[in-house]
Amino acid sequence: MNIAIIGVGLIGGSFALALRREYADLCVIGIDRDADALDDALRRGVINEAASTAAVADCDVILVAVPVRQFPTVLAEIAGYLKAETVVTDTGSTKQDVIAAARAVLGHKISRFVPGHPIAGREHAGVAAAASELFEGKNVVLTPLEENTTESLERVRLLWRACGAKVIEIPAETHDAVFAAVSHLPHLLAFALVDEFAGRPNAKTLFSFAASGFRDFTRIASSSPEMWKDIALNNREALLRELNAYEAQLVVLREALEARDGDALQNLMARARHARDRWMAGELDGFRDEAI
Amino acid sequence: MNIAIIGVGLIGGSFALALRREYADLCVIGIDRDADALDDALRRGVINEAASTAAVADCDVILVAVPVRQFPTVLAEIAGYLKAETVVTDTGSTKQDVIAAARAVLGHKISRFVPGHPIAGREHAGVAAAASELFEGKNVVLTPLEENTTESLERVRLLWRACGAKVIEIPAETHDAVFAAVSHLPHLLAFALVDEFAGRPNAKTLFSFAASGFRDFTRIASSSPEMWKDIALNNREALLRELNAYEAQLVVLREALEARDGDALQNLMARARHARDRWMAGELDGFRDEAI
Repeated sequence: MNIAIIGVGLIGGSFALALRREYADLCVIGIDRDADALDDALRRGVINEAASTAAVADCDVILVAVPVRQFPTVLAEIAGYLKAETVVTDTGSTKQDVIAAARAVLGHKISRFVPGHPIAGREHAGVAAAASELFEGKNVVLTPLEENTTESLERVRLLWRACGAKVIEIPAETHDAVFAAVSHLPHLLAFALVDEFAGRPNAKTLFSFAASGFRDFTRIASSSPEMWKDIALNNREALLRELNAYEAQLVVLREALEARDGDALQNLMARARHARDRWMAGELDGFRDEAI
Repeated sequence: MNIAIIGVGLIGGSFALALRREYADLCVIGIDRDADALDDALRRGVINEAASTAAVADCDVILVAVPVRQFPTVLAEIAGYLKAETVVTDTGSTKQDVIAAARAVLGHKISRFVPGHPIAGREHAGVAAAASELFEGKNVVLTPLEENTTESLERVRLLWRACGAKVIEIPAETHDAVFAAVSHLPHLLAFALVDEFAGRPNAKTLFSFAASGFRDFTRIASSSPEMWKDIALNNREALLRELNAYEAQLVVLREALEARDGDALQNLMARARHARDRWMAGELDGFRDEAI
């Protein structure tokens, strides 16, 4: 089996490493706009070959793992080379936009494009951070299309399971709404806080006194600005809805603080702690639309 | 030497354990409104004796480690028992309010009240989480009063250094302004996010898809609601200023998102990542008022 990885970074590289660990005779072909990243991936043994886009013509499966704003370009480039039976999947953090880009250029081959999103990462990007165990025990969300062939979908499921991941399937719209809340918004909030402090005349004092609470709260602000700018723009409507909801919640908090309403503050904090503790204890697992 | 710890929780208990490790003949007396916590502290060997408030009359040093809203009551209770030479210090996360409470009841004994704030913690409170190494390598901020005797200040410094901490001295007003930004605001923001999700009809779906970014961003939302309600109320003005500044920053972000301004978004994210990476690399240490 030949697999092409387009975008040999943390995610693409880890996918390659995990599959090569499982399938000894697999040939992984790396394709990347960044020639240095490609050299690095080859030197580290992440890929078997470095190639240009035309090489996808010889592949059975193609994983597109580039920042989401590059999908229209990348998909347009590969569309002409695809064999009828080639399965294409992706790792984009937003799904409706990626699907729209795929529909625009893949024609009837859309039946073999299976949209995916592995819920795994590290704050440091790049192939140097890639690891075969990155997806071990993690969720991979697929948002299958009604046109998808059973065989394409099953192939993508099997590959992710071979990486040690748990496969979950939901509609693309649900995916984008849920991740706007639990992932995209927190990233925006963390970037916002660090930048706000960094711009002050006493920034050095502030950072000097920042401790482990601040460190963990802002860990995701060390993520890739290019990747997260793309996600923010491509999931803009859902993210704006989440931002508005959060701003409304801050107004509630501010009013409680202004009114010196200790009960309201403590109740809100206690509800938050209770929900988080239940989540950490695994009591909220289940992917069902329910109040808690 | 006899030391009384009023409030035998995570912080008070860890102070006791660290000092008992250093000073074999030290006698630590625990005082707590919660009789069970006191029994637990005794059983775990955190304190040598459980006692009531009157026992402070036999102590050389008293550490007040209760939620900050309880300071006026606790200080009023102990004021009458203090020997002339007894040094009193505290671990409150806010300082101007604690100092005001001390001034109101201690009279001339204010010269031996040295306000302090150890920058260490864990999200789980209580004496069960106490550990002798909690303050190892951590900062302890003292905000000395102009009335403080040299001897009292030096005694408190030495005790914290014996716990392995690094002692820093700044004015109480600076302390409260800095911690409103780097600690109190992030706690409020984390509690706000978790509570906002917990209140939704699809809360279970949201929490089911939340991953490590959300986990770290909200770690501080598992902190004690009572303690953080107290901090929010007692550092209310500074916290409201920080909340306003953060809300203004969210407006900047929202406008960039509404205008699809990818450059503005990416620049803000890149500034944040750069500042955070410098901070993590130790390049912003120094406690000096400087832009970065």
